[in-house]
Amino acid sequence: MDLAQQVRRTIARYRLLPPGAVVLAGVSGGSDSVALVHLLLELAGHGDFRVAAIAHVNHQLRPTADRDERLCRELAARLGLPISIEAADVRGYAASQRLSLEDAARRVRYDHLSRAAAAHGADVVAVGHTRDDQAETFLMKLARGAGAAGLGGVYPRRDQVVRPLLDVTRRQLRQYLSERGEPWVEDESNQDLSNPRNRVRHVVLPELERLVGGDVTGALARAAELVRDDAAWLDEQAARRFESLVERINDELAIDAASLLAEPVPLRRRVLLRALRAVADREVGFEHVQAAADVLAGACRGTEVPGARLELRREKLVLSKRGLTRSDTLI
Amino acid sequence: MDLAQQVRRTIARYRLLPPGAVVLAGVSGGSDSVALVHLLLELAGHGDFRVAAIAHVNHQLRPTADRDERLCRELAARLGLPISIEAADVRGYAASQRLSLEDAARRVRYDHLSRAAAAHGADVVAVGHTRDDQAETFLMKLARGAGAAGLGGVYPRRDQVVRPLLDVTRRQLRQYLSERGEPWVEDESNQDLSNPRNRVRHVVLPELERLVGGDVTGALARAAELVRDDAAWLDEQAARRFESLVERINDELAIDAASLLAEPVPLRRRVLLRALRAVADREVGFEHVQAAADVLAGACRGTEVPGARLELRREKLVLSKRGLTRSDTLI
Repeated sequence: MDLAQQVRRTIARYRLLPPGAVVLAGVSGGSDSVALVHLLLELAGHGDFRVAAIAHVNHQLRPTADRDERLCRELAARLGLPISIEAADVRGYAASQRLSLEDAARRVRYDHLSRAAAAHGADVVAVGHTRDDQAETFLMKLARGAGAAGLGGVYPRRDQVVRPLLDVTRRQLRQYLSERGEPWVEDESNQDLSNPRNRVRHVVLPELERLVGGDVTGALARAAELVRDDAAWLDEQAARRFESLVERINDELAIDAASLLAEPVPLRRRVLLRALRAVADREVGFEHVQAAADVLAGACRGTEVPGARLELRREKLVLSKRGLTRSDTLI
Repeated sequence: MDLAQQVRRTIARYRLLPPGAVVLAGVSGGSDSVALVHLLLELAGHGDFRVAAIAHVNHQLRPTADRDERLCRELAARLGLPISIEAADVRGYAASQRLSLEDAARRVRYDHLSRAAAAHGADVVAVGHTRDDQAETFLMKLARGAGAAGLGGVYPRRDQVVRPLLDVTRRQLRQYLSERGEPWVEDESNQDLSNPRNRVRHVVLPELERLVGGDVTGALARAAELVRDDAAWLDEQAARRFESLVERINDELAIDAASLLAEPVPLRRRVLLRALRAVADREVGFEHVQAAADVLAGACRGTEVPGARLELRREKLVLSKRGLTRSDTLI
């Protein structure tokens, strides 16, 4: 199957582009996003969607930012596509919002993409994340302890944003561009091994490849997909159970212990997670869900986790809010 | 919480030792299993289970095998416990059964533990896997591509075997033994970096720890537990759906396409996996399940995967057996 067919299958599989879709493509100038534009145009030729424009954000973070912008302008001119360019003060935004540069750049980028889509009458924004990004993100989330929530990797679709390249590799995209003599820019910061993602890419994944002697990126990307889809459905089920099992009494939540114990473990955990989050009003870790499950199972009469107190009271598990103490902030 | 309390909580959480349980402990002589025996005896003192004996298998693979056996004998004598020892010809067994040494050693070991349990009137076999083993196993399964099945790590209970140390770390166990002046043997083969598990332990996990700056082993172990419990319940649900959705007609399986499409993705995938396995009579990869899902979704009329042919026939997805061709064996 050639690359365009593979991308077409991804689009069909996740229904990324409904009939008549008008697409804006986000382009950094790197191989992934440049290939994305070419592939979308190729598929639009016999598909039923249309590429309206491309959009580029100049983050003004790297010495080569202007070179990247120039390549995107040339690409648009050559393909006869409108281009929307925004220069963003990512450093200033990161400082004012107290975000990491990476988080600030992401927010600025998606904000611009969304505005550019509206300006060009596009209803979908396509971005160039690949199977490699999927694998790297999944491994980093695993290592960081994604908490009881959100282990999955990158989503094929989220709101307006779609990722048609999620089943193909960076290597395939570079080969595709090379065969066509299409230029792209190399982001030299991808070589910087002080960046965690780059270490995963250049150190951890190659080491894992050596030791299992197989396609680790593919294996991780498939696992991310399985885990993500399983979790999405289980979360949906748990949300329904939460509504039917949980009573709100003043500032407390109460759950009939026997009914919750009758639920299977995956739903029981997720109902507890939702209840803890609601009461503590903050993100909750797996160890706190486990502590709540221990109270529910009668292993102890009560416990405290950051932001919430739990106890068994007349066959109900009762969660009440509590102020944070100094020791909580150390957790 | 002290170490014994932590282990007691694990035992309670997974109901590893029912009241009146009689336990046999498997002991290699390494820190994990030696600590296991001490901790079980400590907990049996105020618990309602009893440690009947310990068992050791001399795999005769390492130059230090006899030293390991001697330490186990001394341990048993000092604690006043019966010991069951078996010398096993793992190399011979591996050769005759065409197994890797690691797989052969595991089979021989669990066979002996099971026989020793029967001989000592024990109904449960406890072994010393730790949270570190959990994390390492999970990461290796992920990297190897555990297929559409079995991503989870090590199970707290499987048949007769229980793992009470699954929530504590190797480091905690060594500290526990050191504080008591209890000896253990160091398995020098654990330093051999040509062994994949040792590379995960000594190279990959420390690298991940450095780059996320947190407790990666704990994060992976928690993820393993979540994923394992989610998958166990989803598999159970899928087994029921399989029985109600799948018709067997001669050598073929037929599934009403609309009914299967109405199932949520996690169950749909698992029903397809079961159907493919049943027809192809072999392990099936995630990519084959995806190919089957594409046929079901009408993306193509039919496809072939190793051992099975799939097609849409009058609103049914029909799976039929097919012989393997040369190209299949290359997959």
